[in-house]
Amino acid sequence: MADELKVAVLGARGRMGTAAVDAVEKAEGMELVAALGRGDSLEKVTEAGATHVVDLTIPDATETNVHFAVENGIHCVVGTTGWDADRLQRLEQKLAANDDVGVLIAPNFALGSVLASAFAAKAAQYFESAEIIELHHPNKVDAPSGTAVRTAQLMAATRAEAGTGPSPDATEKQLDGARGADVDGIRVHSVRLRGLVAHQEVLLGSPGEQLTFRHDSFDHGSFMPGVLLGLRTVASRPGLTHGLDGYLDLGL
Amino acid sequence: MADELKVAVLGARGRMGTAAVDAVEKAEGMELVAALGRGDSLEKVTEAGATHVVDLTIPDATETNVHFAVENGIHCVVGTTGWDADRLQRLEQKLAANDDVGVLIAPNFALGSVLASAFAAKAAQYFESAEIIELHHPNKVDAPSGTAVRTAQLMAATRAEAGTGPSPDATEKQLDGARGADVDGIRVHSVRLRGLVAHQEVLLGSPGEQLTFRHDSFDHGSFMPGVLLGLRTVASRPGLTHGLDGYLDLGL
Amino acid sequence: MADELKVAVLGARGRMGTAAVDAVEKAEGMELVAALGRGDSLEKVTEAGATHVVDLTIPDATETNVHFAVENGIHCVVGTTGWDADRLQRLEQKLAANDDVGVLIAPNFALGSVLASAFAAKAAQYFESAEIIELHHPNKVDAPSGTAVRTAQLMAATRAEAGTGPSPDATEKQLDGARGADVDGIRVHSVRLRGLVAHQEVLLGSPGEQLTFRHDSFDHGSFMPGVLLGLRTVASRPGLTHGLDGYLDLGL
Amino acid sequence: MADELKVAVLGARGRMGTAAVDAVEKAEGMELVAALGRGDSLEKVTEAGATHVVDLTIPDATETNVHFAVENGIHCVVGTTGWDADRLQRLEQKLAANDDVGVLIAPNFALGSVLASAFAAKAAQYFESAEIIELHHPNKVDAPSGTAVRTAQLMAATRAEAGTGPSPDATEKQLDGARGADVDGIRVHSVRLRGLVAHQEVLLGSPGEQLTFRHDSFDHGSFMPGVLLGLRTVASRPGLTHGLDGYLDLGL
Repeated sequence: MADELKVAVLGARGRMGTAAVDAVEKAEGMELVAALGRGDSLEKVTEAGATHVVDLTIPDATETNVHFAVENGIHCVVGTTGWDADRLQRLEQKLAANDDVGVLIAPNFALGSVLASAFAAKAAQYFESAEIIELHHPNKVDAPSGTAVRTAQLMAATRAEAGTGPSPDATEKQLDGARGADVDGIRVHSVRLRGLVAHQEVLLGSPGEQLTFRHDSFDHGSFMPGVLLGLRTVASRPGLTHGLDGYLDLGL
Repeated sequence: MADELKVAVLGARGRMGTAAVDAVEKAEGMELVAALGRGDSLEKVTEAGATHVVDLTIPDATETNVHFAVENGIHCVVGTTGWDADRLQRLEQKLAANDDVGVLIAPNFALGSVLASAFAAKAAQYFESAEIIELHHPNKVDAPSGTAVRTAQLMAATRAEAGTGPSPDATEKQLDGARGADVDGIRVHSVRLRGLVAHQEVLLGSPGEQLTFRHDSFDHGSFMPGVLLGLRTVASRPGLTHGLDGYLDLGL
Repeated sequence: MADELKVAVLGARGRMGTAAVDAVEKAEGMELVAALGRGDSLEKVTEAGATHVVDLTIPDATETNVHFAVENGIHCVVGTTGWDADRLQRLEQKLAANDDVGVLIAPNFALGSVLASAFAAKAAQYFESAEIIELHHPNKVDAPSGTAVRTAQLMAATRAEAGTGPSPDATEKQLDGARGADVDGIRVHSVRLRGLVAHQEVLLGSPGEQLTFRHDSFDHGSFMPGVLLGLRTVASRPGLTHGLDGYLDLGL
Repeated sequence: MADELKVAVLGARGRMGTAAVDAVEKAEGMELVAALGRGDSLEKVTEAGATHVVDLTIPDATETNVHFAVENGIHCVVGTTGWDADRLQRLEQKLAANDDVGVLIAPNFALGSVLASAFAAKAAQYFESAEIIELHHPNKVDAPSGTAVRTAQLMAATRAEAGTGPSPDATEKQLDGARGADVDGIRVHSVRLRGLVAHQEVLLGSPGEQLTFRHDSFDHGSFMPGVLLGLRTVASRPGLTHGLDGYLDLGL
């Protein structure tokens, strides 16, 4: 089929890469043309005639990979971390010289998580109280989760912009830690429980009502619908897009 | 204070009206100038110098009330039901002749409920599966709730527009009713439980993840923040607005 | 009807007392024969022929009230706080001399809350991980709630007795407070949200599964079924019972 | 170590058997001495000196396996289905002649699920309203789940015994199926959602309060703690025990 996407997966032997190979093979409208692991030459991507690349490698490799793809007119969906301001600036320059190529760099491909964060940020300005509970497996080393911290920051920003006051709290005496961590005025509570994977609840309250957004990530398969959405959209969005929410139709 | 809203409440002796009188009296930036019950003359509204009216009366009275207000240049926030297509058309004509007056007609003033419905409709297109559970006190005579039916219709519409397929369901044998009611292809389940007021969960699922929106309405105080938001916004939105979501900043 | 309970409510003008008067009047099989407020003479109880007393007064009055009732052969259901070890010992002595009289002293009459605590304590020994989230209105001055602390202590005790190890937790770096308060090794998180009343979740986790108990107290009416259960049971349980769970059929 | 359990797993190549082999190998205080698949001789069990057998085979094989073990003085933990009344009677006779041998036959080894059902049955008698929501993956062919039907039956039985009336329900008009399936007077709602595995909520309500039990089964690892508990307990419980709850300390 002429319009089928020809996809090369970079980092194909890692956990995420393996899942991406599997997802691309099963998806309609796309064909897996190359699967590269550590040590494989990037030439394989062009030799295979790839129109799209999924980069799920490591911070040390991702910039070289993406520049190579852009120079060859290949659209990129990137899940690797490590894209700091300097790297993003160099990528923007590279894209300016290849202005029909699209690149999506997304720190999170779980659609539900991305949507929940976006909605929580919007809704937080309309409620007196706002708190976050995040729940993860007990092997996690940091608390709160990075997603919870970012969600709290987004919520705090929209509340500040709208002139929403601080969440009311009459607590006078507490056991140390009971009221959670304070992230820009939003209280964040971290639960660690065997059996769980990654879950988050945003709780918003006003007189007589509560609005709750909950996202459950049960396994890493949750990232693949977002990767496929990225692959299907990236060619129609030349230039750099940062964050999967840029591809979602969320105007209300 | 020159810019203070001068508010008249119509239907001030009903349950909602009583709550509105109380809310307006306590709110910053507005003053209660009149509170009318059944039999009171509408002239009281103009005599009191009202700039805004809240109409919480009955279907038989609301059209007369709103026309009177519009003719006198008074902005209206309307929670009364009964505004069918004919009435809305006559009101549009009336407003065309008074084009600096704003009217908000809202079937639901609970901010959380309005937001949850809007978000659910947007998000439903991105998930394989979508169902609704609504939970109410056991004195409710209809099932599902009107809010649940409307939410399901909105979700079904965005799924159809985006080309999302039907929710997968391999059920071959079931006890009658187990899989709920079918509203445009969305399954809706109605729980009736002593102790509850009005609650709704929208459940969205894809491989490895779930996104849930839950709204709890604990008491009728939940409507007042929406009424106050309407009062503060209506003067800046001349013409007719239908639904509180028209006043919410939901662009994402 | 000969077997009808004749109930006197003490503290009848307080918030709880008013609710109790209402509940007794509506309940089948019992009759309200007296409702005493501050300053009323206890003689009214005996003059009215009460067989049962509900004491919802204040710590300074409750001991005198209960001793008066016991001396007069009247069964007591007591919701007033302030019963320390000395008072309990004096009451035991008084009951030893009136051995057909029953007294129930209960710190909590919400059946759901009492059941949830009892079940949580039992179940906690069978799971690797155990945490508590309690959620209350934002006017509450202490965190965690007394109920959450007691529940955690009960859970910790059954875990210790069964030899269950500590909940696993690999947290190495955290924002201060993120992991909640530590109550005997059980992490407790306190949410304060406008719109809420009093709610508690006990979360238990093991590989591949989670068990959650949630109790919601929406208003003070939640105490009345427990008061009525107490009144119906107390005559058949001579002597002192401490805690409503003593009247519940929980053997499994 | 003299007291170590010597465990043989029957059906060791099936999905559950594979997990059991893994769990026994990792567990403290027990040693895997044999792992039999289809076609292996039962003699391997005695030759390996097994003190305990885990049977996870098929209905056609399980009776022969268990009789062989009992005759050889080996305790049995059985997860295979197919034990009808006739088989149970024959096993009781066999055990009467080998009265120091213990056998546990359990239809469900997930501790959380067993506990939730037991607690729900107990608690249901104390609340006006009781309903069940069960949520599963969309490949499930029957609705409601067998667990939900059994839980509803147990709840209905304790409510009937306690004289609890039917759950109040004023529904006059409903979309077909909205109020769920009726199992002995308990309404049961079946959600089917991509991403889910097996989940159940029991909702109990009375004036002003709600008590909810939720069990989540995320993967089949959830059965192994129950199998290990069975192995550790079975030798101290001679004769036949039906249901894992018989081994749980649930007296309250």
